[in-house]
Amino acid sequence: MQPTISLDSKYARHLDDNDELRDFRKKFIVESPELIYVDGNSLGRLPLTTVELIKDVVMDQWGGRLIRSWNEGWYDLPERIGDKLARLVGAEPGEVIMADSTSVNLFKLALAAVRRQKGRTKIVTDNLNFPSDLYILQSVAELAGPECQLVVVPSLDGIHGNVAGLESAVDDDTALLTLSHTVFKSGYTYDMAAITAMAHKVGSLVLWDTSHSVGALPIQLKQSAVDMAIGCSYKYLNGGPGAPAFLFVRRDLQDQIANPISGWMGQNNPFEFDLTYQPAAGRRRFMSGTPPVLSLAASEIGIDLLLEAGIDAVRAKSTLQTELFIELWEDRLAKLGFTLKSPRNVFERGSHVTLGHKEGWRISRALIEDMNIIPDFRRPDNIRFGFAPLYNSFLDVYDVAKSLYEVVEQGIYEKYQEEKPEVT
Amino acid sequence: MQPTISLDSKYARHLDDNDELRDFRKKFIVESPELIYVDGNSLGRLPLTTVELIKDVVMDQWGGRLIRSWNEGWYDLPERIGDKLARLVGAEPGEVIMADSTSVNLFKLALAAVRRQKGRTKIVTDNLNFPSDLYILQSVAELAGPECQLVVVPSLDGIHGNVAGLESAVDDDTALLTLSHTVFKSGYTYDMAAITAMAHKVGSLVLWDTSHSVGALPIQLKQSAVDMAIGCSYKYLNGGPGAPAFLFVRRDLQDQIANPISGWMGQNNPFEFDLTYQPAAGRRRFMSGTPPVLSLAASEIGIDLLLEAGIDAVRAKSTLQTELFIELWEDRLAKLGFTLKSPRNVFERGSHVTLGHKEGWRISRALIEDMNIIPDFRRPDNIRFGFAPLYNSFLDVYDVAKSLYEVVEQGIYEKYQEEKPEVT
Repeated sequence: MQPTISLDSKYARHLDDNDELRDFRKKFIVESPELIYVDGNSLGRLPLTTVELIKDVVMDQWGGRLIRSWNEGWYDLPERIGDKLARLVGAEPGEVIMADSTSVNLFKLALAAVRRQKGRTKIVTDNLNFPSDLYILQSVAELAGPECQLVVVPSLDGIHGNVAGLESAVDDDTALLTLSHTVFKSGYTYDMAAITAMAHKVGSLVLWDTSHSVGALPIQLKQSAVDMAIGCSYKYLNGGPGAPAFLFVRRDLQDQIANPISGWMGQNNPFEFDLTYQPAAGRRRFMSGTPPVLSLAASEIGIDLLLEAGIDAVRAKSTLQTELFIELWEDRLAKLGFTLKSPRNVFERGSHVTLGHKEGWRISRALIEDMNIIPDFRRPDNIRFGFAPLYNSFLDVYDVAKSLYEVVEQGIYEKYQEEKPEVT
Repeated sequence: MQPTISLDSKYARHLDDNDELRDFRKKFIVESPELIYVDGNSLGRLPLTTVELIKDVVMDQWGGRLIRSWNEGWYDLPERIGDKLARLVGAEPGEVIMADSTSVNLFKLALAAVRRQKGRTKIVTDNLNFPSDLYILQSVAELAGPECQLVVVPSLDGIHGNVAGLESAVDDDTALLTLSHTVFKSGYTYDMAAITAMAHKVGSLVLWDTSHSVGALPIQLKQSAVDMAIGCSYKYLNGGPGAPAFLFVRRDLQDQIANPISGWMGQNNPFEFDLTYQPAAGRRRFMSGTPPVLSLAASEIGIDLLLEAGIDAVRAKSTLQTELFIELWEDRLAKLGFTLKSPRNVFERGSHVTLGHKEGWRISRALIEDMNIIPDFRRPDNIRFGFAPLYNSFLDVYDVAKSLYEVVEQGIYEKYQEEKPEVT
């Protein structure tokens, strides 16, 4: 254990002084007195430029130009923003599009994949996947026919992915393997290229949910030979509450699968008003209805900021932040009953760290009410700390650990009653 | 023909002077010099109050309160706005919810309905329905199994619904009858109660797409014993570009059908993170993913304005406006080659009127470029004029007819080349 990371703030300040991303913090709305916001893995902060952009979309584009704005930019927004996002996830132009929600996109692509893989009857996933991904897959399996089954491989410790278990489960009867790239609870992050290659060996398609990794770490969809991916844009992408999700389909697969929600915006020539659906060529076929333009437009700025910062720099800072936090945990928090519920190995981690504590819910309340820190809580006893390198400083990380220490050591949490967790 | 409605503007001004809704025009952003905007049936105007609301949602709720806003209003928005909308469509509280797009909602409800109606193999609709509703139904029929077929009843004249044809097609093998209440091209409007009763007689469920009628005319979902309905909020509801759609399921049917896109927001207790989907009770089960909050929040104000005006007053003004326009057409435009492609009978009309003309596309260009009037164009030769009583005056109606007359009489349209229509 290095003395520099004991509970004084010098080391954190030193890291901040040398942080090449430190000025990005100024590009976000930060209230005063300043909140320590470590829930950017649920809803990212508001970029300053987004405020101006939304004003323009509302007043000038909607209010002033009205319907003409569809020709003046709105119609192409899902593709234009998609192409920017493609640069962040190692995809080609033409492979990513903004559309619907993560759930709807998973439904569309998983069902499309399974229907293409005729004769194969298994969908494989794991129990670390986001629960609502499992809900969608349960429905997809049911719609795919009575022989289709969903296989949920259990994690051995609730923290790490069970790679050997997945290898056993994925076989030549598997239509689709789908996993969260970074899992929501522990932050465990799969080796995307290795898992994809494993599944491809037996002819399974692979779909990754990148909701908890996009914008937090480098993703190489093309280099990893990924077939399909989805993700949301309101976490590390700072796209705003419920900002539209995105989907990726590798180019040569796009015209081989059919979107089951064959809507208006996925039609080849929607303004011909033909009575029979003809899918658009390429990614556009995976759109369904009209996108929510205000929310969609707002999602662009956060992506711009990440491209400007560079995802490698973001990841470098993120790993230093999660490492600092875990070392502070080891040094002072472990002895207060906190357990580490994230991988210790930095290569297996995303940008959030989860600590368990039997008083997790009350401690979490105390952080919010008494320490002006917002983490999030996941039942039964997990407190998640999402570090967003664009606006979280190393001093934030230090202060979170220090506050956790004080809240337990001084019994500050004891005044709170056990109750239902907030919606976060 | 009354002389008062000949091509002078006195009668229109008289109607404006006596218009009890005339002050509502001031509640919208109207640019200067003033455009005559008769495309509110595609994208409604921006209410002044919406500008303030969005500023608050962005700056205070997202920027300031961040994730806490989910508990402070966002989570309940789909239901809260849904309950307001329920008052506009004759539904009960708890029967309407804002969600996704019209296409996604149609997919969810149509598939849910067909799967419930086991043993029945037909989905019946007509060829006046919005084309992308047909696309969705084609996919739903395919997913429902090889025996399921989509029957598309043709209109006899391309303008009016073929009620007798529907009566023949709907039988005890019909799982679902689904139609546009007001059809997009001609504005023909079905007798919702009569058609619903006809289908119920043989045990079919009925789903109405109200996109082109909601906010334009009274809808009585409960009184008409409707099973399900969907609609968009960016037309007469003035909810903004791509504002979330809504769906209605009558209360006693809600727990009998299953949402195939069984997502995060439709789960009974999403923050328990159970691994198996348990649908929420009531309408909430028909949600899927996280709603786009900025666009969703913006949809409330237009509904408020309609409730304030009263839908009966809106309909009364609308029928006077479409009647005035049609009488102006009869008086002066018919002889210039314009044909009426909407029902002559006011009880069969919505709030838009469609005129055909072999030079429709070029005339439409001239209206936009030379006359500062925005209608919309639907291939091959239809110009649609959507009258939104909250902000269109009778003088607008008169000026549109006068401009049409001048554009053709003076050959103003002749300078435009035939080309692809704009996206509207």
